[in-house]
Amino acid sequence: MSNIHLGKGSQPPTFPEDGKLRLYSMRFCPFAQRVHLVLEAKNIPYHTAYINLKQKPEWYTQKSPLGKVPALEIPTSKDDPLIESLIIADYLDDQYPQNRLNSTDPLQRARDRILIERFNGFITPYYKLMFSQTGVDGAPGAITDAINALDVFEAELKKRGSKFFNGSKPGFVDYMIWPWCERTDAFAFLLGDKYELDKVRFSKLIEWKDLMKEDNAIKSLLISGEDHYKFRRSTFRAEGPDYDFLPIPAKRIRTN
Amino acid sequence: MSNIHLGKGSQPPTFPEDGKLRLYSMRFCPFAQRVHLVLEAKNIPYHTAYINLKQKPEWYTQKSPLGKVPALEIPTSKDDPLIESLIIADYLDDQYPQNRLNSTDPLQRARDRILIERFNGFITPYYKLMFSQTGVDGAPGAITDAINALDVFEAELKKRGSKFFNGSKPGFVDYMIWPWCERTDAFAFLLGDKYELDKVRFSKLIEWKDLMKEDNAIKSLLISGEDHYKFRRSTFRAEGPDYDFLPIPAKRIRTN
Repeated sequence: MSNIHLGKGSQPPTFPEDGKLRLYSMRFCPFAQRVHLVLEAKNIPYHTAYINLKQKPEWYTQKSPLGKVPALEIPTSKDDPLIESLIIADYLDDQYPQNRLNSTDPLQRARDRILIERFNGFITPYYKLMFSQTGVDGAPGAITDAINALDVFEAELKKRGSKFFNGSKPGFVDYMIWPWCERTDAFAFLLGDKYELDKVRFSKLIEWKDLMKEDNAIKSLLISGEDHYKFRRSTFRAEGPDYDFLPIPAKRIRTN
Repeated sequence: MSNIHLGKGSQPPTFPEDGKLRLYSMRFCPFAQRVHLVLEAKNIPYHTAYINLKQKPEWYTQKSPLGKVPALEIPTSKDDPLIESLIIADYLDDQYPQNRLNSTDPLQRARDRILIERFNGFITPYYKLMFSQTGVDGAPGAITDAINALDVFEAELKKRGSKFFNGSKPGFVDYMIWPWCERTDAFAFLLGDKYELDKVRFSKLIEWKDLMKEDNAIKSLLISGEDHYKFRRSTFRAEGPDYDFLPIPAKRIRTN
């Protein structure tokens, strides 16, 4: 299962000419996961090519000018692939009407966007923690900032009074914040048991997390807390991250 | 004309109960300007309250939880005002159908969004420059990074072959990037004559800037390069920025 992630010296993938969308991704990238989730939730057929982000293929800037994943190639368009997870997610939801994820009410949509924007209050300290080789000690205050940022989401679930942020089934907010919520399962491994989410303070959010794990789109991409932890530890190796230690679901493997 | 910008110790503004939107703004804030531009371009009636961002009113976090401008209060909604310039701009364009600024084609809309996102390549070094008390010397590389980021926009105007990014009249991209483009007129004052935009390298962008200045929405809010410069210099004063040195157009003055 080695070298699923294409790196330096690789050839660009050759996809079948079947009109399907082509997603450039990385197995552990939460931003790419957002796009996978939307594709899965809306049942849109697609191919995936995985990119080694530490040793990027020379050809990759032709696909994504800033070298980032996710990037979505639309085979019927001659222009550059789309970039930026939220922009791609919106495009997919607007272009493919089945299982609409965004609200059609402009005000509700704006409120959902603000909520996603406020989730950056979690993402920013989360990355400080993840890039700290010594865990909590190496990123003073980050764990507190990250956990505090989740209070807004606990309160919002209470206020909305629904199982999911978007009602009786997961919608745009649910899928867009999920990848990082999934990774809170790695906190106990990475940072110590006491950093598991507090069961009282985050009772609604923990209930929501359990329900989310029953969702088919979520399930098809779910990585355990322990595996997220293993990947994160591997990023500190001299030889770079171990992108390929997990088996990749058969239907996602690129075809060349 | 002093104290138009509400500061510490002020009372919250009382707006007439006329159903009009209420925008919390700051006269020189480019993000707030984005929202003013959309309101003006779509001819949506609104009231404005200006906020002193250095000495914020105690009541302001009730309007904008992170204390930022712009914030848009919707008198018919009990919820918090909307925040984040792009989210507010989208809301206004979706809610008020006149003079549609966004493309209705999902792919074009996504491409426009990517362009706006790439404008952060200008905004980030721009702020490094503006916060440097010693101009170019205090922010090494920033002026080069900022100018280089504009190459994408020059190339895009050539590629689109239209007067404006959005065609024959200004649209979403045009208005969203404008506030910082307007401020490039301050470069000669702030940084020295040689930092004016190069007339050959940016011929399309300069043509576009001139056309934009003919647009009614742009004109109604335009601040000269020299006045932007004056404000920017004032931010380094011991007593804080001089928010109130410009006359504010009569129809924008809050009513209490």
